[in-house]
Amino acid sequence: AVPFKRASSHLSGPAQPVAYNVSQLFQGDYGRAGLAHITVAGARHHGMKGVEVWLQTFAPGVGTPVHRHDCEEVFVIQRGAGSLRYRTAGGSVAELPFAANDTLVVPPNLVHQFVNSQLQGDLQALVVFDSPPIRIHTYANWSSAEAVLQRPYFWDKECPLTLPAAL
Amino acid sequence: AVPFKRASSHLSGPAQPVAYNVSQLFQGDYGRAGLAHITVAGARHHGMKGVEVWLQTFAPGVGTPVHRHDCEEVFVIQRGAGSLRYRTAGGSVAELPFAANDTLVVPPNLVHQFVNSQLQGDLQALVVFDSPPIRIHTYANWSSAEAVLQRPYFWDKECPLTLPAAL
Ligand SMILES: [Zn+2]
Ligand SMILES: [Zn+2]
Repeated sequence: AVPFKRASSHLSGPAQPVAYNVSQLFQGDYGRAGLAHITVAGARHHGMKGVEVWLQTFAPGVGTPVHRHDCEEVFVIQRGAGSLRYRTAGGSVAELPFAANDTLVVPPNLVHQFVNSQLQGDLQALVVFDSPPIRIHTYANWSSAEAVLQRPYFWDKECPLTLPAAL
Repeated sequence: AVPFKRASSHLSGPAQPVAYNVSQLFQGDYGRAGLAHITVAGARHHGMKGVEVWLQTFAPGVGTPVHRHDCEEVFVIQRGAGSLRYRTAGGSVAELPFAANDTLVVPPNLVHQFVNSQLQGDLQALVVFDSPPIRIHTYANWSSAEAVLQRPYFWDKECPLTLPAAL
């Protein structure tokens, strides 16, 4: 069997590739009702160094905190619909609607919030960003000017003790 | 309307986010019968700096060239099944089977090939990697020791002249 954990980066040769099913990975709400988060490939969870990938599912009306981070972020919408709210250069809050098969690109340092705006039906997205683990500043709401650095981020605080078996 | 192209990175404030539908993006086979490639979010195509995302669809029996690159690569399998072939530390060629909802992590510098091993049915994957644009070395086949740097890579050679309209 191919080992799940990659060899450390100081080894001279390339490590082994790994394959695992998303259904084998730990899914949690991390204290947020209506959220299902899976770290599909992560720095803390799987030793990723360049990119991290999440699969996130949001119930109707549920979204992320208002937040910012200094990495690029790409959302590939798998199903459902929602809105990306963001702080404009002028200081107001704008809203960008999206639906399945849409791609969202969020530039670094933009204050934003990703929300399931549907009355019913889940919103599911693959979330991709560079330079993991992520450093997120959250705001209590859109009126708050105070940002709090959440690091490690909620799902980076505890790693699942049981890594999924490789295929 | 939100501008599609992000502002250049030397601007002090964050640029605008963008949203667009994958169906609006250019899809091509780039001379490879049985391949459909879309750059969902790319360095050359959309000004990405940290991550790049592709959506690739392979007909039965079709795959990538034997190749390597110094970035991390994550495949999130959307549908179908296939094999990741790779050069082991011992020099032989190993094969890692996968199917829908599997995630593959390919470490930097591993020589590998991603193939639709099905007799019928497409294989579709979201492909994610860091530090775009990609620098790929290709090999004519598994017996070849000679690697050829393909840079810019095939779909990075020409950018679509018409960028998709933002939503
Ligand atoms: Zn974000
Ligand atoms: Zn590759």
